[in-house]
Amino acid sequence: MESERTFKLTLAYDGSAFKGWQRLPGKARTVQGTVEAALARIVAHEVEIAGSGRTDSGVHADGQVASVRLRTSLAPERLRLRLNAELSDDAVCLAFEEADPRFHARYHAIGKTYRYLVRDAPLRDPFTARYAHHVPARLDLDAMRAAGEVLVGKHDFSSFTNLKPGEKSFERELRSVAVDRSGDIVGIVFTADGFLYNQARIMAGALIEAGLGRLSPGRLREILDARDRSLAPGAAPAHGLRLESVRYG
Amino acid sequence: MESERTFKLTLAYDGSAFKGWQRLPGKARTVQGTVEAALARIVAHEVEIAGSGRTDSGVHADGQVASVRLRTSLAPERLRLRLNAELSDDAVCLAFEEADPRFHARYHAIGKTYRYLVRDAPLRDPFTARYAHHVPARLDLDAMRAAGEVLVGKHDFSSFTNLKPGEKSFERELRSVAVDRSGDIVGIVFTADGFLYNQARIMAGALIEAGLGRLSPGRLREILDARDRSLAPGAAPAHGLRLESVRYG
Repeated sequence: MESERTFKLTLAYDGSAFKGWQRLPGKARTVQGTVEAALARIVAHEVEIAGSGRTDSGVHADGQVASVRLRTSLAPERLRLRLNAELSDDAVCLAFEEADPRFHARYHAIGKTYRYLVRDAPLRDPFTARYAHHVPARLDLDAMRAAGEVLVGKHDFSSFTNLKPGEKSFERELRSVAVDRSGDIVGIVFTADGFLYNQARIMAGALIEAGLGRLSPGRLREILDARDRSLAPGAAPAHGLRLESVRYG
Repeated sequence: MESERTFKLTLAYDGSAFKGWQRLPGKARTVQGTVEAALARIVAHEVEIAGSGRTDSGVHADGQVASVRLRTSLAPERLRLRLNAELSDDAVCLAFEEADPRFHARYHAIGKTYRYLVRDAPLRDPFTARYAHHVPARLDLDAMRAAGEVLVGKHDFSSFTNLKPGEKSFERELRSVAVDRSGDIVGIVFTADGFLYNQARIMAGALIEAGLGRLSPGRLREILDARDRSLAPGAAPAHGLRLESVRYG
């Protein structure tokens, strides 16, 4: 009998055709369910993977991380090739590494970076429509950066989450917010020790409002201090968001 | 009764979810059928548009041109906004201009530019998979340019087309072939007075073979001179191809 080994997987996926990360009962296509089924075909036993966190339906990933225990004698690089042969074009395993037996992708994550893409041009573009939220007016990047500065730091982010029952603490440390432009695509990059449910999308929505001149830094600070979800702007759409990377100690 | 006016439309579309340009009977979603139906809803009469040419199923366009006659008093800019409101995210009307009453997008085209995208990196990428053909080995751009030079000029391109009955002449003037790189994406740009059926994809297939070191300029010249389709490499996949622009006098 082969001994059990622990692996760390780094995955990229286009979230458009997935119903989010988390395995669901029935036929819904999810990233977790798809990767688990693919690995099970390779190692011929039931497989459960643990993601660093769930991505919502439609959210993409450049560097989602998952941990998994497998009974196999295959080398990690061989496992990576086999897994990629099982996956379809919209998901790829970038790295498959042997890890400490106790490694857990969620419990051991110490930081995450999300990137939100906005296309700010008059006309929509069919080729970026799946990956960037379109706003038909030009964004003011300096105003977005000023709004980002309000949010950076250790705060109670109650105003920037859609409550999930059982959440123990609403405090997170937002380490940085960066805003960049490449042509018509504006990127908003959030790095934090962790994110509350929908937090990245709600913060992106607030920065977009700021960039459109409809939300001042002062008003944003009031919203943050109020700890009241009903005050913050709506979450920006899922398809503009991507989990860029997960940090471990 | 409103008088009939002629318009020139410039369209961009992601070809992934279209069964090509040409209207088909039944429920198949095509670009021509979709745009005609959208315009018919706006002007309230049957509409027939003429494209500069057909794009195959899966082929994209950055600047397809079509002509159409409409009975309407609406201004072109208003028609463009109305058309874009009718179309879904994977197609957009970039320009809607009033044209000479005799303008015809196919008969009056004097040149076309196609771009073929290849991603030459070991791993596939979910975010470019719909728009760039993936080859897992690095391409030699100088070898591709040398192959391109063989093809440039006025030639009988019988070796580079899949025959369609009724084609009168196989002579076309390939005005230029350019090869560029942006990161892992290699672009092959063909400009000609016109293209035979599948010609751009078969030429792209030949240049990719050249870039992989499997087809020499000398052998390519033999294939061109032989006027025999069975000798040329297979057509590169449709999803890497995009109609970049159409030129008029």
